[in-house]
Amino acid sequence: MALLVNSDRFKSDFDALAQIGATGDGGVNRPALSEAHLAARRWFLARAAEAGLETRLDSASNHSAILRSPHPEARTLLLGSHTDSVPNGGRFDGALGVIAALEALRTVKDAGMALPFHLEAIDFTDEEGTLVGLLGSRAITGGLSQEALKSPRGGRAALAAGLARAGLAEAGLLAARRDPQSIAGYLELHIEQGPRLVQSAVAIGVVTGIVGIRSFRLAYHGKANHAGTTPMEARSDASLGASAFVLTAREMVMRDYSGCVVNVGQMAFKPGAFNIIPGLAELALEFRAPDAPQLADLEKALLGLAQVVGRQYRLKLSVEPLDTCVPAPMSARAQAAITAAADSLALTHTALPSGAGHDAQSLAPFTDAGMIFIPSQDGVSHSPREFSEWEACMNGANVLLRAALKMCEADGR
Amino acid sequence: MALLVNSDRFKSDFDALAQIGATGDGGVNRPALSEAHLAARRWFLARAAEAGLETRLDSASNHSAILRSPHPEARTLLLGSHTDSVPNGGRFDGALGVIAALEALRTVKDAGMALPFHLEAIDFTDEEGTLVGLLGSRAITGGLSQEALKSPRGGRAALAAGLARAGLAEAGLLAARRDPQSIAGYLELHIEQGPRLVQSAVAIGVVTGIVGIRSFRLAYHGKANHAGTTPMEARSDASLGASAFVLTAREMVMRDYSGCVVNVGQMAFKPGAFNIIPGLAELALEFRAPDAPQLADLEKALLGLAQVVGRQYRLKLSVEPLDTCVPAPMSARAQAAITAAADSLALTHTALPSGAGHDAQSLAPFTDAGMIFIPSQDGVSHSPREFSEWEACMNGANVLLRAALKMCEADGR
Repeated sequence: MALLVNSDRFKSDFDALAQIGATGDGGVNRPALSEAHLAARRWFLARAAEAGLETRLDSASNHSAILRSPHPEARTLLLGSHTDSVPNGGRFDGALGVIAALEALRTVKDAGMALPFHLEAIDFTDEEGTLVGLLGSRAITGGLSQEALKSPRGGRAALAAGLARAGLAEAGLLAARRDPQSIAGYLELHIEQGPRLVQSAVAIGVVTGIVGIRSFRLAYHGKANHAGTTPMEARSDASLGASAFVLTAREMVMRDYSGCVVNVGQMAFKPGAFNIIPGLAELALEFRAPDAPQLADLEKALLGLAQVVGRQYRLKLSVEPLDTCVPAPMSARAQAAITAAADSLALTHTALPSGAGHDAQSLAPFTDAGMIFIPSQDGVSHSPREFSEWEACMNGANVLLRAALKMCEADGR
Repeated sequence: MALLVNSDRFKSDFDALAQIGATGDGGVNRPALSEAHLAARRWFLARAAEAGLETRLDSASNHSAILRSPHPEARTLLLGSHTDSVPNGGRFDGALGVIAALEALRTVKDAGMALPFHLEAIDFTDEEGTLVGLLGSRAITGGLSQEALKSPRGGRAALAAGLARAGLAEAGLLAARRDPQSIAGYLELHIEQGPRLVQSAVAIGVVTGIVGIRSFRLAYHGKANHAGTTPMEARSDASLGASAFVLTAREMVMRDYSGCVVNVGQMAFKPGAFNIIPGLAELALEFRAPDAPQLADLEKALLGLAQVVGRQYRLKLSVEPLDTCVPAPMSARAQAAITAAADSLALTHTALPSGAGHDAQSLAPFTDAGMIFIPSQDGVSHSPREFSEWEACMNGANVLLRAALKMCEADGR
């Protein structure tokens, strides 16, 4: 089977979608359930209908194009991603996976193939977390709770306004859950958003799993005092603990936790005057690890280090745990299908974890989930400068198509 | 001459002043030209008048009590400090020096002494810089410029409102300048606001000079990027430069610049999200040195260090110079008078620089200026917890009185 997607149709649709919410600098501004995002989704359903595909809109606002198997009771193989963007983001993140999924369905339809699974190209709601984070994919897999909706990332007001714009009821978000028995698997094509594939000149990344993420707010407590009259050796300066933690946490992760990352993305000294020694230094800590044991290990090591640093400078440390996102290993079956698809196209490939979150992490505990990465120029993402060569996009779409067919072969009914 | 101030009268006035703008926790809230500050100054002039002293209010709102010499053309020896406070400050900072100056004049008057100088107890306007900073002392010494009034520390609106409350015209601030030939010297009693006298159990600090202060805004520029997908070794993380600078600047000053201090009182990472590597790290740098050559040396060393640290982490450094406050050495004549006064009272004393700014620094280039420090409990200041033992305050007032008489002896006409 030497099926390939239609490059012209794929490119024309990718470019058309990039015009919706275009920011004029190569990027798009399509936050979840914004007018631009709603327009993009209407366009997607219209393109699906034009191709003779069935369309579906669920109560969590997930938009789908469906190619039915001749077997009415067939399970559904989901292919998807998202059309929402971060504010002033790039035109590849999410959109590429949705258009490639649509194109895969059209290609199979054009070839007149009868598959053992229904194929569903799905555009999940709010992957980027403008309102809730992985809203649509969590909704269909039962990963969304009443709780999460009470204190959404973007605030209650933004969620209510978004739901109103989309004509959605909050109850519908929880009602969108599907039966896992009805789902045969999930495949997602996405740009890497990092530099590894580009740097190693490999065409396809076979994602082994999506890293787990933990975040904490740490605060070192010293004593605010006059920065002129207090001798250096008499100070209890909170800035020292925070600064030493930033440096030693990085060193520790690079030395002992290969494959993990740590970031201190916010820092504030209080009271915050030129002439007052910081009595308080607050910092935002986030770290990621590819699997649960490493994530737990890393947490213990970083919090232990924070304590050691505090003692060194005679500062009290307070630790506030924030979000946890558990690691999501990709299924071996899906990884094998992606690898075989890349091999069938003579494309170089490598196994690698995803450092970023994706809808696939919602699907991983629910069904056989797999992800395909293609190279991101300079590793840039969430920026209008986000770019992937069209050849790389084509490679990704063809691997998605063929991996879907491999999933059918491997688990046909 | 065994003159001593009247302890009861001094204490009673000190306590009465502490009631004006009292915050109920031992502190006072008398920002410059606030209603509480204006009330404190009216009270001061009333107390001076009750003591039979001449009173004077200049066009910069400096409030004075004057004891005339029998020689009409005598020069004036100024004794003073300020009655304004930082917001929610302590009751000793400034107020002690004003009441001690008033008490010194009353003591000389009561003793019926004829001095070769007029004595003037002066309450300078806005030492703390709520509006302009050393406003009154700069006004009389010509250290105030039209420029400085255009962009005052507290903003134009606050200055205009304060001047209106006090019934002052902006032009009057510049017109308050006095003829240096008319001034015989300046002495100021103040709490140390640091822990050195308390820690060494010494009664009197003979201030050698007021440190110079320089401040800069530094910024390290890296590259904001995804904190999950960007490998640790591929990052250009601005937080690393800022953190390393905080630690190495402190080490350098403690090792190589004894008597100097450095502070990083503000820090901000941008864009400032848990999951974004800081592309920009801004910090507020302030350092102080006792004399001009050391201040220049220290500046060169710290800015050089900031560059080295930037290169080490492959970050660009930008440097924005802000305020400079030149070091103000105290006069040898005034220091000798203070030392002799302490000796005459059998009080232990030590020479030490002032790490904080004071009105005496405006006077230093203008006349023979000297400062007397007394111990501050725990070195705390600018806080309701600011405290000095009453015995220490009495020691200070008596040293002020006798140092004033020594100035008369040393330079009588």
